[in-house]
Amino acid sequence: MTTFIENMLKTHPDGSNGVDTALLADCIAACIECEVICTSCADACLAEDMVVDLRECIRRNLDCADVCAATGKVLARPTSDTVLIRALVEVCRDACVRCAEECEKHAGMHEHCRVCAEACRRCEQTCNALLAAL
Amino acid sequence: MTTFIENMLKTHPDGSNGVDTALLADCIAACIECEVICTSCADACLAEDMVVDLRECIRRNLDCADVCAATGKVLARPTSDTVLIRALVEVCRDACVRCAEECEKHAGMHEHCRVCAEACRRCEQTCNALLAAL
Amino acid sequence: MTTFIENMLKTHPDGSNGVDTALLADCIAACIECEVICTSCADACLAEDMVVDLRECIRRNLDCADVCAATGKVLARPTSDTVLIRALVEVCRDACVRCAEECEKHAGMHEHCRVCAEACRRCEQTCNALLAAL
Amino acid sequence: MTTFIENMLKTHPDGSNGVDTALLADCIAACIECEVICTSCADACLAEDMVVDLRECIRRNLDCADVCAATGKVLARPTSDTVLIRALVEVCRDACVRCAEECEKHAGMHEHCRVCAEACRRCEQTCNALLAAL
Repeated sequence: MTTFIENMLKTHPDGSNGVDTALLADCIAACIECEVICTSCADACLAEDMVVDLRECIRRNLDCADVCAATGKVLARPTSDTVLIRALVEVCRDACVRCAEECEKHAGMHEHCRVCAEACRRCEQTCNALLAAL
Repeated sequence: MTTFIENMLKTHPDGSNGVDTALLADCIAACIECEVICTSCADACLAEDMVVDLRECIRRNLDCADVCAATGKVLARPTSDTVLIRALVEVCRDACVRCAEECEKHAGMHEHCRVCAEACRRCEQTCNALLAAL
Repeated sequence: MTTFIENMLKTHPDGSNGVDTALLADCIAACIECEVICTSCADACLAEDMVVDLRECIRRNLDCADVCAATGKVLARPTSDTVLIRALVEVCRDACVRCAEECEKHAGMHEHCRVCAEACRRCEQTCNALLAAL
Repeated sequence: MTTFIENMLKTHPDGSNGVDTALLADCIAACIECEVICTSCADACLAEDMVVDLRECIRRNLDCADVCAATGKVLARPTSDTVLIRALVEVCRDACVRCAEECEKHAGMHEHCRVCAEACRRCEQTCNALLAAL
């Protein structure tokens, strides 16, 4: 999917605002993946017998999903303002870290938390790579 | 990304509501891809000299993006009600068809419309495959 | 807020697609209100001691929030296709009914479910009023 | 709507994280209002004869709408982390300012831009009031 998104970004008449399209596509793909994986993890946590112990995890999942959704959409408009992009990607990175840290506590017991932490860490990395290039 | 989403769906304690996880993952991945591709296409259309001729395309892009976003999230909760899923996936399929039909008119002149039509048609197909299996 | 949204709709150069702007504004306002009320109700349910009994309520809250979000945005573009609007508003109305029915079961015990059911029923009514006028 | 949202927030078993519920409800209501007003303004701008001069306005409308949507949802979960809330509300405030500044340039000629600038400035103010209280 990342290559397909990158191909799309390359068709933009105004280019990509001086940002490397591969890094941008990586971050968009990671954001939308993280959004749906977090949404699924919240639903899976809710189905667990020990849901009481997973409340904080569900909340961080939902916060992370909402922030990733907005970030993916803003980045998909490569003409967006760089100052806004930088600030939003930083918030997204931080939301991913917070979600990953909580999911990692439960990863040994719940496979969905392990998978979700992996998605969050991937999104964190693509955010950092994009921030370094802005 | 589809395999990763499918792996996530397989970890759900309640299973996937009797729906084939591969079809479900295909549709989720196609929805979120279509969402960001439509968002990018709208922004690219807006940058074209002939933006006046692309108004209808931009509108269908934005409608399709909003419906795909909601559909991807609802499907990522495999415990969602089948009646709701069916109705929403039908709306999503129809929004993708409408967007694809308009983008295809401009595909010869604008590469972003050609790529976007491809994403919409892929999403249409995964919606139809999921509907057939519900 | 409804009056403010209606004032906005009246400024559109193309009018509102033959739809009564007051009904349209009512439905948009009810959709976005329902979206955030459902989001709050899910979070409040999650904090209850008896969260296990509120799983279905949380899921319907989240589904309803996602569908209301998409519906509010599509309706805010009054140039959207009437066929799409009709189909989406029907799905939204049904998601509101499903959420209201579950919330009403818990309304005697949990005030957030009572408030949420009220928001869902209001959104249902504005959807029905809009559908009757399309 | 603000009072209704505040009533909802007051029902949360965990309270509102030490944040004043009136300020929180004001900000949530302003975010979702700004989201749909910006969505409408983008569609109205697109319909203008002089759409070419309104490209930047449409882009800022869409960015602002996406950020407001995420902010409204995160705030509607009053258990969200204060650090995340602060960072996201700052981004939201800045997106509103950017959109307002552009809309204000066109407010004399396009009533939808005048109304949209008003919604963005109201959201900016509620964000600032909330930030001062966090």
